[in-house]
Amino acid sequence: MTTEFADRHIGPGRDDERRMLATVGHASIDELMDAAIPEVIRWHGRLDLPEPTGEHETLTELRALAARNSVAVSMIGLGYHGTYTPAVIRRNVLENPAWYTAYTPYQPEISQGRLEALLNFQTMVSDLTGLATANASMLDEGTAAAEAMTLARRASKSSSPVYVVDADALPQTIAVITGRAEPLGIEVRVLDLTVQALPAEFFGLHLQYPGASGAVRDHTALVAAAHEVGALVTVAADLLALTLLRPPGRIGADIAAGTTQRFGVPMGFGGPHAGYLAVRAGLERMLPGRLVGVSRDSAGDPAYRLALQTREQHIRREKATSNICTAQVLLAVMAGMYAVYHGPDGLRAIATRTHERAVRLAAGLRAGGVDIADVPFFDTVTATVPGRAAQVVADAAARGVNLRLVDDDRVGMSCDETTTPGHLAAVWAAFGVDGVDDTVTAMLSDGLRRTDDILTHPVFRSHHCETAMLRYLRRLADFDYALDRGMIPLGSCTMKLNATTEMEPVSWAEFAHIHPFAPAGQTVGYREMIGQLEGWLAEVTGYDAVSVQPNAGSQGELAGLLAIRAYHRDRGEGHRDVCLIPSSAHGTNAASAVMAGMRVVVVGCDDDGNVDLVDLDAEIDRHRDALAAIMVTYPSTHGVYETGIASLCAKVHDAGGQVYVDGANLNALVGFAKPGRFGADVSHLNLHKTFCIPHGGGGPGVGPVAVRAHLAPFLPGDPGGAPVDGRAAISAARYGSAGILPIPWVYLRMMGADGLARATGVAVLAANYVAARLREHFPVLYAGNKGLVAHECILDLRPVTKATGVSVDDVAKRLIDYGFHAPTMSFPVAGTLMVEPTESEDLAELDRFCDAMIAIRAEIDEVAAGRWPAGDNPLANAPHTAAMMAGDEWPHPYPRSVAGYPGGVDRAGKYWPPVRRVDGGYGDRNLVCSCPSPQAYES
Amino acid sequence: MTTEFADRHIGPGRDDERRMLATVGHASIDELMDAAIPEVIRWHGRLDLPEPTGEHETLTELRALAARNSVAVSMIGLGYHGTYTPAVIRRNVLENPAWYTAYTPYQPEISQGRLEALLNFQTMVSDLTGLATANASMLDEGTAAAEAMTLARRASKSSSPVYVVDADALPQTIAVITGRAEPLGIEVRVLDLTVQALPAEFFGLHLQYPGASGAVRDHTALVAAAHEVGALVTVAADLLALTLLRPPGRIGADIAAGTTQRFGVPMGFGGPHAGYLAVRAGLERMLPGRLVGVSRDSAGDPAYRLALQTREQHIRREKATSNICTAQVLLAVMAGMYAVYHGPDGLRAIATRTHERAVRLAAGLRAGGVDIADVPFFDTVTATVPGRAAQVVADAAARGVNLRLVDDDRVGMSCDETTTPGHLAAVWAAFGVDGVDDTVTAMLSDGLRRTDDILTHPVFRSHHCETAMLRYLRRLADFDYALDRGMIPLGSCTMKLNATTEMEPVSWAEFAHIHPFAPAGQTVGYREMIGQLEGWLAEVTGYDAVSVQPNAGSQGELAGLLAIRAYHRDRGEGHRDVCLIPSSAHGTNAASAVMAGMRVVVVGCDDDGNVDLVDLDAEIDRHRDALAAIMVTYPSTHGVYETGIASLCAKVHDAGGQVYVDGANLNALVGFAKPGRFGADVSHLNLHKTFCIPHGGGGPGVGPVAVRAHLAPFLPGDPGGAPVDGRAAISAARYGSAGILPIPWVYLRMMGADGLARATGVAVLAANYVAARLREHFPVLYAGNKGLVAHECILDLRPVTKATGVSVDDVAKRLIDYGFHAPTMSFPVAGTLMVEPTESEDLAELDRFCDAMIAIRAEIDEVAAGRWPAGDNPLANAPHTAAMMAGDEWPHPYPRSVAGYPGGVDRAGKYWPPVRRVDGGYGDRNLVCSCPSPQAYES
Repeated sequence: MTTEFADRHIGPGRDDERRMLATVGHASIDELMDAAIPEVIRWHGRLDLPEPTGEHETLTELRALAARNSVAVSMIGLGYHGTYTPAVIRRNVLENPAWYTAYTPYQPEISQGRLEALLNFQTMVSDLTGLATANASMLDEGTAAAEAMTLARRASKSSSPVYVVDADALPQTIAVITGRAEPLGIEVRVLDLTVQALPAEFFGLHLQYPGASGAVRDHTALVAAAHEVGALVTVAADLLALTLLRPPGRIGADIAAGTTQRFGVPMGFGGPHAGYLAVRAGLERMLPGRLVGVSRDSAGDPAYRLALQTREQHIRREKATSNICTAQVLLAVMAGMYAVYHGPDGLRAIATRTHERAVRLAAGLRAGGVDIADVPFFDTVTATVPGRAAQVVADAAARGVNLRLVDDDRVGMSCDETTTPGHLAAVWAAFGVDGVDDTVTAMLSDGLRRTDDILTHPVFRSHHCETAMLRYLRRLADFDYALDRGMIPLGSCTMKLNATTEMEPVSWAEFAHIHPFAPAGQTVGYREMIGQLEGWLAEVTGYDAVSVQPNAGSQGELAGLLAIRAYHRDRGEGHRDVCLIPSSAHGTNAASAVMAGMRVVVVGCDDDGNVDLVDLDAEIDRHRDALAAIMVTYPSTHGVYETGIASLCAKVHDAGGQVYVDGANLNALVGFAKPGRFGADVSHLNLHKTFCIPHGGGGPGVGPVAVRAHLAPFLPGDPGGAPVDGRAAISAARYGSAGILPIPWVYLRMMGADGLARATGVAVLAANYVAARLREHFPVLYAGNKGLVAHECILDLRPVTKATGVSVDDVAKRLIDYGFHAPTMSFPVAGTLMVEPTESEDLAELDRFCDAMIAIRAEIDEVAAGRWPAGDNPLANAPHTAAMMAGDEWPHPYPRSVAGYPGGVDRAGKYWPPVRRVDGGYGDRNLVCSCPSPQAYES
Repeated sequence: MTTEFADRHIGPGRDDERRMLATVGHASIDELMDAAIPEVIRWHGRLDLPEPTGEHETLTELRALAARNSVAVSMIGLGYHGTYTPAVIRRNVLENPAWYTAYTPYQPEISQGRLEALLNFQTMVSDLTGLATANASMLDEGTAAAEAMTLARRASKSSSPVYVVDADALPQTIAVITGRAEPLGIEVRVLDLTVQALPAEFFGLHLQYPGASGAVRDHTALVAAAHEVGALVTVAADLLALTLLRPPGRIGADIAAGTTQRFGVPMGFGGPHAGYLAVRAGLERMLPGRLVGVSRDSAGDPAYRLALQTREQHIRREKATSNICTAQVLLAVMAGMYAVYHGPDGLRAIATRTHERAVRLAAGLRAGGVDIADVPFFDTVTATVPGRAAQVVADAAARGVNLRLVDDDRVGMSCDETTTPGHLAAVWAAFGVDGVDDTVTAMLSDGLRRTDDILTHPVFRSHHCETAMLRYLRRLADFDYALDRGMIPLGSCTMKLNATTEMEPVSWAEFAHIHPFAPAGQTVGYREMIGQLEGWLAEVTGYDAVSVQPNAGSQGELAGLLAIRAYHRDRGEGHRDVCLIPSSAHGTNAASAVMAGMRVVVVGCDDDGNVDLVDLDAEIDRHRDALAAIMVTYPSTHGVYETGIASLCAKVHDAGGQVYVDGANLNALVGFAKPGRFGADVSHLNLHKTFCIPHGGGGPGVGPVAVRAHLAPFLPGDPGGAPVDGRAAISAARYGSAGILPIPWVYLRMMGADGLARATGVAVLAANYVAARLREHFPVLYAGNKGLVAHECILDLRPVTKATGVSVDDVAKRLIDYGFHAPTMSFPVAGTLMVEPTESEDLAELDRFCDAMIAIRAEIDEVAAGRWPAGDNPLANAPHTAAMMAGDEWPHPYPRSVAGYPGGVDRAGKYWPPVRRVDGGYGDRNLVCSCPSPQAYES
């Protein structure tokens, strides 16, 4: 019974395992792992985790924890609002594996569905903010605002280090901005701009619109004043309010930042939801994060893909200005679809209703003699009740409504689409007033009101009945290839099963509908669940403390490096600022180091792909006094258990540095080695890799940071609490993307120590099985002990490319014709494919993949032999669409059957990509990042 | 706010409506309806329903009702057991619109996914019962057993009217059998065969295996004895038990019947779940219901389709022996997938665990001195506690466990896969014994045990990890065309939106996990919800009383006719047995009349498709004294509001007959006319047509029967209660498929009076819009007032067929190439297509359909003009598969682009059927009704 779930999670059955072991040449998984993992790091214990429970029992246990949360009506506001997720979107996006098991759309041909959904999101943001270009997406409003700050610094001509933040900004945004500014030498000045003047010099200005207090102010003059001194202006704006209010773009803002949470995404105790960032024309190439753009495919038809990737961290590395990588795709899709479903009229109606309730709320309070500031507002009002604020908030909570305790004298309250007359009555009662019943008309003056039409693109005007919406979602989902169709053998990405039992609790009200600043008494279950999870993760990794706050791996890296930085400063060694990073590292590592105020020094790798210990010694010598840290990935990004890891740790420690082990490849270690025990001081984990949070098409992710005890005091601080020196808030909410933490909790609870170890063993077995089967067809680059790889293997295509011109791209696209998502391309070595099968693929699927790769090799040989021309063969023209098949002409020198149904492909169930190979360069030269007009599709 | 949901449910927006009205030539929907509906039946009131609430508020209200149910541990047994629905099946079948919005697989080319799933189901049943052929599926165990009885009667050579039922059969099965037997002149004898002898003559014998008491008996001798006198033997068997026990087929049984509920389908307070029926070789052509078989497509490749349809009620009509039509497809799919996911080893492990718990339960009771009969058992034991039974049952209930109160002295208790040691402890405590802790080994003797292997087909041995299962479900779902892809314009079937908000509560534990015989105190919410629903349905239809018990439309018909029969008998007019049925009626009508013991007399139709009132007068005259009823459909099956309906009712009433109005077309009446007010005495409704229960690929359905007050005493009786004269139980559970009644409840709650009326108006508008747009391309057969149709229209293809040879079949299959499900074919008029667009299709989709039909008409003209040969054109070869497109040869005289992408088709989102046109006849001649070996697919 206790292995029940592990047997569902792990693809190969015992018979499969035996066959795979025979191919790899080992007698058992234990023997294989003994051979593969260097003894120096090997941990021989059994993880101290609770005995695993079955799927039903686990959910029963989690239900009991969930029941310890209380779902109150939230009128706290501060960027988190009650919202109704349209049921058709909940069921067909959030709860649909076709959406949530998809990978980041780096292979655009098989990602057109989510790319279109993200383009809708960008169009929505761009349209509502009145700015030219929006990305898709940011991790939350706080980090979006921080990215806006650094963007402003890059774009501003001012040499001032000062960044002005309006005091009416969201407190957690101020916390995150402050935390990000410090290592970068930016001086944040929080000013009450209603009474304080702008400084003479500053490079940027952050305004909240409406303010945290609820005030809607005309910022035109402030924007003009900032522009006078060469500063850029960011307006952190509420998108729902912008359906009624003059947008940032119309008052001259350069940047808009914020969240789209209230567009149908549950609060989730802080996340995940999609932040946004939009910029005026001229700044688009400086925008961080992912940007979907329109390009064309090889037939000249419009096709979407990620635009301007060369400006991103994985290309720019130590020159990167942002480390954002994982975004919040699944939630951005939901928010965009919320706008598609409601349309402009629907959104305006929701905004108007929300506003009218706030007006009525204020009128009732005023009628009862409560002091409400006489400023225009949208959904939020602040009442002044000298000395009584805490009592009012407590009284309202007792009536089931959470208000915002601003300070001893002031209470804030926000309305949203879920606010009912009953809620208003409860608030009035808490204030001890009667309220009024007569409807009050809206209060926004014409000068503040929006006058232009919104969401004019047809996509926002076509899917308003549920039938149409359902079909639109199905159509887009069908464009894409996700784990529910087949294997996604992406090296370094660990695309394993996202079990339904792990996913179901995400929809439970007790997890979904909790405000991050809800009173502690209402979040007991959440905090207990998170505490257990942090404890289990500490046990798995061998660290002493874990924080789940970072809401992406990149944020975990930053949090870890900031902890190292704070540690050195705390010890009076604040001068240590060199971060060693091997040349094979993920690009994000370097970007994070830069953001943490460190200087990146690259350490070379030897011919076997391992960190070059000689070069390491040299660099340590060169930077001994300034050495802050080394960042390495283990097993290496080459998919190898490097034997020198212990020695590497010792050398760095001896020089006074800290060791950061990137946890991206933890799936090869769990149960067999613990970074916290073999020499590392800090790691971030990727819960969306090793611990089953689905990739969601490019997010959400969760990147907890795990540290040894000496770094524990420097874990992320509470963005909602008082600032603590050295504990920067890394996300806008204390527990980051708390709403999806049930996923890893359920996974760990159901797998237990033995299940986890077996998963690791099978993952390593599967990689070695693939390597063994493919080695004679493609050279396998790098191996460790006894020729074994770890959990992934690199197939070297460079000789083939040199000989035939067939590129990794060609092979990757040809795999689509065979019914696969491509492996990781050209990372960590250009011209290679990195394959990570994970433990969740059964032998039939592994063989299907190997057979496809072998068949492709034979096709390459045809090109090599000159039987197919280099420029016109099934590889060069891949992927092939159904529309190509149905073409009346067939100009190619190979038959259609070979193009569309290469050997072994499931004929009836064939996946056809909707577009041909996408031309990324064309789109970058002709940048279009919002929905094209329908005419663009006329052929 | 109150129209919020209606605007989501109804496809056309107000602008669309105006455009459609302009095409139809009416100024408003009211005016249209005034013109269309004869004033004589028109009802001008406003439905007295609660004011509609929004989606969120409605679910909140329903949650409050659900909270008034208590979910206890059920050990009541009697064919309903606790079971774990594997989460991957719940989310990806039960909660996936690709499965639940599909229609019955009459168009096999676009139904291969669910046909394969049903073939799995049949294979599972056939394999586990040890019989040659199983169907897919029956409505519940009780009706399956009743069908087995009538099958036995047809097949038996005995002329005896006696059917023997073992007293250890399930009590509700006995109730249903008895109810069905009486009108057919079958004499049921319930005998305790452990002490009573078989009669000298009987035509059939029903045995329960294991018995309701839990006893597992070797029935071999009884079977032989029955065969001696020419009787057939039905064994009602528990499939889970059959994984361990010698199957019915091995002891000579002719028929097996039962339920598959415990294969992962929640109890749902009685349903829906799939019943099964399996027969030995030689009886397969007598099997009622749907039978999936293997045939081949026009390329000679294996393809599935419904087999032997000519034996079904819709063809055989008054010669039919069963009226079963809607089955329980969605639930059969779930049960089959449960077996696929667990596989033979998994099922045996579940059965063994279940059995061992029962053994332990019994041992503990015995150790405490409780009297347990000394017979072999599988999962159920009966304890004798003289005079104490009620107290023990009450005590257990107080501990959260429901037991079965057999009588004053006996308590029954059943274990299942959800039974835990804690449950056993609670039972022991209720009996006042300590229980024992030592594990007891299984008790089944070798003679009773199964010795052959089970579920040997690879499909039951390949999908045991969740990843593989998920992909298998996705692959099959992708084969099919359901409402989530596009319109299903099926006349008479009302394929409207199944809103997510309506569907979500079906998964709630408070509805899903309630045993039909749970104590009344635990089902307060259910009964209140059902009471409200019955009341609302009465209001909508104008009747005085409604019973939701019939779990399909066919069962509602039978229930209605039985009420009429009982009414006549109650008045001393039991000789009235003639049922008039117009020639245009649904075939099921006649079949139901036969089952109700009536003689069918067909009344002709006039040239306009209306009931021929002259012929009616003649038939009434001819059968005046014997006249029991007339069954008519309104609007007529021709899609017309017949003006003679009031007169028809009066004539029949004057002759002493009752008027039955088939509610199949109620979607054209709601809010505008009430059958119960314009002259009818009884109707059945189809909640899966008008009231949004999804078709599920061919079920579940719900067919409530609604009657005027004089028939109310004769509504269906309680199968679990004491038999009441004249109130036959029509289903095995008091409230039939209670588990899906939240769907219509939510629909009615959210639509309200105005929403419902508007839906009706838009449905009629849409049908008239389609008729108006297509009339010049295809003659529209039949119309009522001012040339208007009701909610559907018939397109006459006979002239075209005569002129060109292009058949309705060709047009239907060609519509697949255009991305549509075909309309209803050749009903009610051979050679025509009947189109019912419903109110849920928006104008864009209506136009897409009309455009496709017009384009097809142009293609027909090409054939007519001789430009394409009659036997080789895009219509004759439709549907075209992607594999055809990719063929290296293209032998057809029209281009591939015309074949695959006819004008206007969504190129990127094109749906490709997995097989070419299916040859039904081949499969009927070569009947294969279980999964073919994988070699069959090798080409």
